[in-house]
Amino acid sequence: MASDSSMSTIFTDFQKYLDDEQEIRERIRVLVRDLEQTTREIHTQLQLVHQQGGIKQVQDHCKKAEASFATLREQYRKLAEVVPSGQYYRFHDHWKFSMQRCCFLSAFITYLQTEKLVTREETAAKLGVELSRDNGFHMDLDDFLIGVLQVASELSRLAVNAVTASDYSRPLRIAKFVAELDAGYRLLNLKNDALRKRFDGLKYDLKKVEEVVYDLTIRGLKPTEDPPKE
Amino acid sequence: MASDSSMSTIFTDFQKYLDDEQEIRERIRVLVRDLEQTTREIHTQLQLVHQQGGIKQVQDHCKKAEASFATLREQYRKLAEVVPSGQYYRFHDHWKFSMQRCCFLSAFITYLQTEKLVTREETAAKLGVELSRDNGFHMDLDDFLIGVLQVASELSRLAVNAVTASDYSRPLRIAKFVAELDAGYRLLNLKNDALRKRFDGLKYDLKKVEEVVYDLTIRGLKPTEDPPKE
Amino acid sequence: MASDSSMSTIFTDFQKYLDDEQEIRERIRVLVRDLEQTTREIHTQLQLVHQQGGIKQVQDHCKKAEASFATLREQYRKLAEVVPSGQYYRFHDHWKFSMQRCCFLSAFITYLQTEKLVTREETAAKLGVELSRDNGFHMDLDDFLIGVLQVASELSRLAVNAVTASDYSRPLRIAKFVAELDAGYRLLNLKNDALRKRFDGLKYDLKKVEEVVYDLTIRGLKPTEDPPKE
Amino acid sequence: MASDSSMSTIFTDFQKYLDDEQEIRERIRVLVRDLEQTTREIHTQLQLVHQQGGIKQVQDHCKKAEASFATLREQYRKLAEVVPSGQYYRFHDHWKFSMQRCCFLSAFITYLQTEKLVTREETAAKLGVELSRDNGFHMDLDDFLIGVLQVASELSRLAVNAVTASDYSRPLRIAKFVAELDAGYRLLNLKNDALRKRFDGLKYDLKKVEEVVYDLTIRGLKPTEDPPKE
Repeated sequence: MASDSSMSTIFTDFQKYLDDEQEIRERIRVLVRDLEQTTREIHTQLQLVHQQGGIKQVQDHCKKAEASFATLREQYRKLAEVVPSGQYYRFHDHWKFSMQRCCFLSAFITYLQTEKLVTREETAAKLGVELSRDNGFHMDLDDFLIGVLQVASELSRLAVNAVTASDYSRPLRIAKFVAELDAGYRLLNLKNDALRKRFDGLKYDLKKVEEVVYDLTIRGLKPTEDPPKE
Repeated sequence: MASDSSMSTIFTDFQKYLDDEQEIRERIRVLVRDLEQTTREIHTQLQLVHQQGGIKQVQDHCKKAEASFATLREQYRKLAEVVPSGQYYRFHDHWKFSMQRCCFLSAFITYLQTEKLVTREETAAKLGVELSRDNGFHMDLDDFLIGVLQVASELSRLAVNAVTASDYSRPLRIAKFVAELDAGYRLLNLKNDALRKRFDGLKYDLKKVEEVVYDLTIRGLKPTEDPPKE
Repeated sequence: MASDSSMSTIFTDFQKYLDDEQEIRERIRVLVRDLEQTTREIHTQLQLVHQQGGIKQVQDHCKKAEASFATLREQYRKLAEVVPSGQYYRFHDHWKFSMQRCCFLSAFITYLQTEKLVTREETAAKLGVELSRDNGFHMDLDDFLIGVLQVASELSRLAVNAVTASDYSRPLRIAKFVAELDAGYRLLNLKNDALRKRFDGLKYDLKKVEEVVYDLTIRGLKPTEDPPKE
Repeated sequence: MASDSSMSTIFTDFQKYLDDEQEIRERIRVLVRDLEQTTREIHTQLQLVHQQGGIKQVQDHCKKAEASFATLREQYRKLAEVVPSGQYYRFHDHWKFSMQRCCFLSAFITYLQTEKLVTREETAAKLGVELSRDNGFHMDLDDFLIGVLQVASELSRLAVNAVTASDYSRPLRIAKFVAELDAGYRLLNLKNDALRKRFDGLKYDLKKVEEVVYDLTIRGLKPTEDPPKE
């Protein structure tokens, strides 16, 4: 039978493993807190597009927001160093919300700049993380898809505020984009999980945007021809 | 703006990723089902030690149970092939209960054969999985520690059945072993998680075993000298 | 061994402590009930600003509501006397909702009077409580921040009622203020707690206010130039 | 109206407060983790009294365990420094379980040494914390009372193991002590809280101990005269 002392040696060894994990979690927590600080700053910058003057200076706000992505990349680089090889999903819960937020911010900026959907490749590059699950610290597809859904929500609000700023063509372009997004997500065979729940909210964003276009139409404010890109 | 067709191309691409994951999950499910079938067979074999004749043929039962570990190793080998590199923890929930069960079975056999605590190394080797988190499909330490706690539970039952089988020295040895296990786990700084909850049950196993020894004592059935190893 | 009588002496002593606590809680409960009565009266007074005539007599309603703050101060003075030194947070749960309500009322009045955000200093002074956590009975920052969020909710309602009262410039000023509040709260690194949950509701208040401004715009009711302060 | 910049100044100031709190919590967490490590070591040492040889060397085990209380005092001293004046109950949740554990350990040692109930004064002194709620870092009465209840649970187990170690008089003394404890707690007018729930378990400990005494009696193993103190 294992003598008392050998048993305690064995468990002391186990504790070393548990301590290591504890330390990794602690370091991750600190780094994620920093990441979240940066995403808050970018988000605050982008919120300005909703203000009356803001819509007219969209590109300025995007430019300023984009500058902070260098900080994000540096913060993800540090985070990637802390997460041991092969253990991305062991600690995923710590950063998945920040990652979703970052994907949202990246996709929102891209929309504001090009009125297109950001690609996974562009987003991963913008965040300085891997694209493939096989190569260490990457951008999980589910997190990307949840982030993009937040863009639809932000755009339904932007459609309202564009009207306030007398921009009557933007809501039409937004309506087209959100409808395409909706059609895209409908192609996906989603599990009954977080992504699915978020997707269920997309229809309300779409409805809201369509109502704005309806209001413009019924009041004769809808631009008659296809609006040129701003 | 993304044309409707390009958007649908993008989402069709996303669906391919989701399909791949779905397929991996399906294959894992099938393999884990096979694994669980084997663990049930081993468990059933080992349950015989609780029967009156069984305790005297402990080594026979262990030998037969051990034979099935070759099947387990083959099944883990197949499972390891299916899980993509770096995604062990992405799918961990699928097999963690089976892994805990396997650790329990391995530790229970080792106890029955040697009255010692199995080591992590022996268990990983017996299951044909890696020991280190860095090398693909491995045995998670938490799963091992939960599995070992199930041994204490099984031993508290064995102490009772040993008395029934007129083996009055085995409960004393079990009591000593479980007390050592308890001291070992007490050294660990456990998070407030599944392992912690399982550990909280250990004190009841220990108490039960102590009560069996108490019953033997009070009835004058306790062997007077330190019992030789069976 | 402790004799039976000494044991009962010890526990009788413990009971004295428990009785003291019980009595303090009882006195706090009574005083908080009085406080809540006053906050209800102030709240009722302020609700008048939502009525059609009310908006035009905003300053009158504020003046009357302000008069009741003398009562609040007296009630807080009594409460502060009952709470033993160093035990503010031991009994915090008893008054935190009233405190949040008081912070809301104070901030709402200040907004109605000046269209500015009340400061912590002004609020603490208005309630007659300390500002610093180190000096006895104070205003907890979380309670202040929760109270201010209720202002945003009230203002989203006021924007609607201002339109009803044919005041088309107030919603614009409210929209600007709530957007600034939103930007302010976004800077905060909130824990996952009550304050965080309340903050999550702010976006709906902001959206509501923006939709009121949108409605004014689309109907050509939006004042063309930047509205002078009322 | 507050300009955008002044609003952000105000919230940056709030964030400073939130950061301070965050930092205090972080430091408390680390110190409490150290405390728990020490309590685990003391607990493991004291567990030895349940082993067969252990009961005979009770005083030795207590002596060794007591030595670690110097470490506890030092750790509480550091913790007391971190907790701001008047905010003991703001952070109480962080250390209340450790405090209950410390009270248990102190009371268990005192029982083993003197077969008496430890006093609040002795316990506070042993832990190097204040006794009174008014003076900074202290021992909360509820935590003390919960800790003492854990002694009853440990003693019910010790009664069983004493019999195993052929010590037939100890269970009688334990039965008397636990009955006195039960009578003491019954005097208390407990709220419907954690302490009350723990107290509800005391009756099972008492029952268990009484059953041990019953077993001794019915088998003629009960010492006939009042047992001299060990």
